[in-house]
This record gives sequence, structure tokens and C-alpha cells, in this order.
Amino acid sequence: MATVAWKQLLLNALESNSHLKHSTFFQLATVGTNGTPSNRTVVFRGFQDNTDNIQINTDARNRKIEELKRWPSAEICWYFTDSWEQFRIHGNIDIIDGANPDPLKLQQREKSWFANSLRSRSQYLGPNPGLPRLIEQAQPEVSLDPSTGPVDAFCLLILEPDQVDYLNLKSNQRLTFKTVVSAATDKSWVMERVNP
Amino acid sequence: MATVAWKQLLLNALESNSHLKHSTFFQLATVGTNGTPSNRTVVFRGFQDNTDNIQINTDARNRKIEELKRWPSAEICWYFTDSWEQFRIHGNIDIIDGANPDPLKLQQREKSWFANSLRSRSQYLGPNPGLPRLIEQAQPEVSLDPSTGPVDAFCLLILEPDQVDYLNLKSNQRLTFKTVVSAATDKSWVMERVNP
Repeated sequence: MATVAWKQLLLNALESNSHLKHSTFFQLATVGTNGTPSNRTVVFRGFQDNTDNIQINTDARNRKIEELKRWPSAEICWYFTDSWEQFRIHGNIDIIDGANPDPLKLQQREKSWFANSLRSRSQYLGPNPGLPRLIEQAQPEVSLDPSTGPVDAFCLLILEPDQVDYLNLKSNQRLTFKTVVSAATDKSWVMERVNP
Repeated sequence: MATVAWKQLLLNALESNSHLKHSTFFQLATVGTNGTPSNRTVVFRGFQDNTDNIQINTDARNRKIEELKRWPSAEICWYFTDSWEQFRIHGNIDIIDGANPDPLKLQQREKSWFANSLRSRSQYLGPNPGLPRLIEQAQPEVSLDPSTGPVDAFCLLILEPDQVDYLNLKSNQRLTFKTVVSAATDKSWVMERVNP
């Protein structure tokens, strides 16, 4: 199966910006429980197998989980600071936490857990993110066995793109990609060149 | 009047990352007309006079204007790639286009227009952003007189922050700032240290 055009552009951008640590960081926008937008930086954890679905790890105790349960729609804004390319990727997010009833999804969560460094995994054992920090609260020494599977707070998010807007500020080109779903065929993409 | 604490942190971050062109770029999330989140990179155009209000320039023909007219709530996510600091700044946006009835706001729009380079100003004379681009469409040579005032498409956005979330990934510190409005006093901010 051929790689969809926007995914190829994204793979190229990841390659040409790979010397920058922050090239795998992007901003994820969701709609808050009160209907207002939320926006935060998260880390790209690769595509799901051979699909164009985007994987993100998060702490299940974070506010965005509540937001996504209510309204699964999200938009990634990913700006590559060296190649001056922007990808806006819209889609719905599937939340895979430890309570997920699908054994295949639990396997994916486990795989994603072990793909993290031991240091990253230890963060999921820290105090509840966003809650007030007590001054006297000592930082406990967390030691995590490398063979320990995903802890409760570890959550895998999978964003399935349905719309992509690509902008190249060097060539001043802008392309939009939209999914077309028909009963007879798989999901396919339609590309259009638009004014930047 | 003392500078509010989060603004001082932001000024420090702008200073320590000023060697990077992209340090003035941030991601702005809004809620789309269909209730889904939108997210795009925009450029910081300074604070409004001596306030903590954040200025952004945009093309009035962009989709985000429609979105903001319906729902003025927005959240900035601003990640500084050298100092590893993130600012999430939530607030409502005031749209100042050429049809604004307030002469003081029109003055601010004009000031913001002339603060742009001549090249940046010329972009507002280009074809309608986001509309299909015709292959045969030649790029017209745009020549703009330096003394020409703001064109119709030029729009000044002013975000008035009401909540800020600061995260420092080097020191692993996180602070939240919330506004408290009372009838007797001006807007004031309450800071809290929270778990990262």
C-alpha cells in the first residue's frame, strides 16, 4: 500500500529536522469541558503499525482525558522550526487506558509503555499532575523495575487523522488533504492546492 | 504598577530564547464553527501598551475570524525550545478589523500595521487564503506604498489573558496563575504551585 501524500511529507519533515530534539514535539488542541479550547505540547510516539494514526502518551490523571471522553475531536499543530513547515492534523482520538476491554489495544498500550525510557515511565508514578504541590512534599525516590508493565496512570492516545493542512513557508505552498469515505472502498484522501 | 509574575517569566523566556527566530511563534487554539478545535502557528506582535494583553495579526479572510466571532475563547501554547519552558495562556480575543467603531482601537490597528515590515504588509494583498489555487494563476507583483495605511484584510487580534499555566521542564516546576475580579479592585492574579 502506498504511503498517503501528507504522511510522506511528514516523514520527510521529521527526517530533515531530526537533528533538533524538539522536532518530535507538537501542540495538541482539544475542547475543554466548559467548551473552551485547551492547548498543550506533547511528544510524537510514532505511527500506529502501518497506518497513518498518530500515537501520543499521556497521564490518565490529566485534564485532557476528561475533555477527550466528552468530545474526542482534536487538532495537532506541528511546526518544524528548521524546514519552516506546518502540519495541522485534525482527527478523533481513541483513549486506551488500563481499563480498555480490547486485548489488542491493551497490547498496543503495553508496547508503547516499553518503548519509553525508564525515566519517562517513572514519571507516571509521580504525584497527581495539576494538583497543588505542598512545599513540604518531598520528591520520593522512584525506582521502577524495567520489566514492570504499564502502570494505571499510563495512557495511550491514538489520533486518526481525517483532515490535514500542510503549509511550507519556504516555498509558500499550501496543500489540504481530506478523507473521502465510501461504502465500497477504504478511506481515501483528496488533495487540493490552496492559497497560503 | 508591578509586572505580573507570569508576564515577567514570559519576558525572561523571550530574552533567553531571542537568538531563535521561531521564539516569537506560538500555537493558537480556538473552537471551530462545528465545535471542533482548530490550532495554528501565529506570531507574537508584542503586548498592548503597558498591559499584559497579547497582540496577534491575521488576515480577516481567515477561518479563525469566523470562529472567534462565534466563540471568542482561545488558548495559546507557547513552547520555548531552548529554555524548555511552556506557557499556556487562556483568554478571550477582541477582533479589531477596519469596520471597528472605536477610534482608539482603529489607531491600535494602524500602529500594528506600520510595525510590520513592508513585505509582511504585502501579504494582505494576496489571494484569499485557504481558497483553491488555480495553477494558471500568476503571482501578481504587489507593490505597496510604505505610507499606505492598513488594508481591508488586515486584522489585529488582542487576547486578554485570564489563566496562565507555566511549566519549566529543566527545573520541573509548574505554576498556575488565575485572575480574580472583584468590584472593588482591578484584575489581580493568584499564583499556585502545582505538580508538573
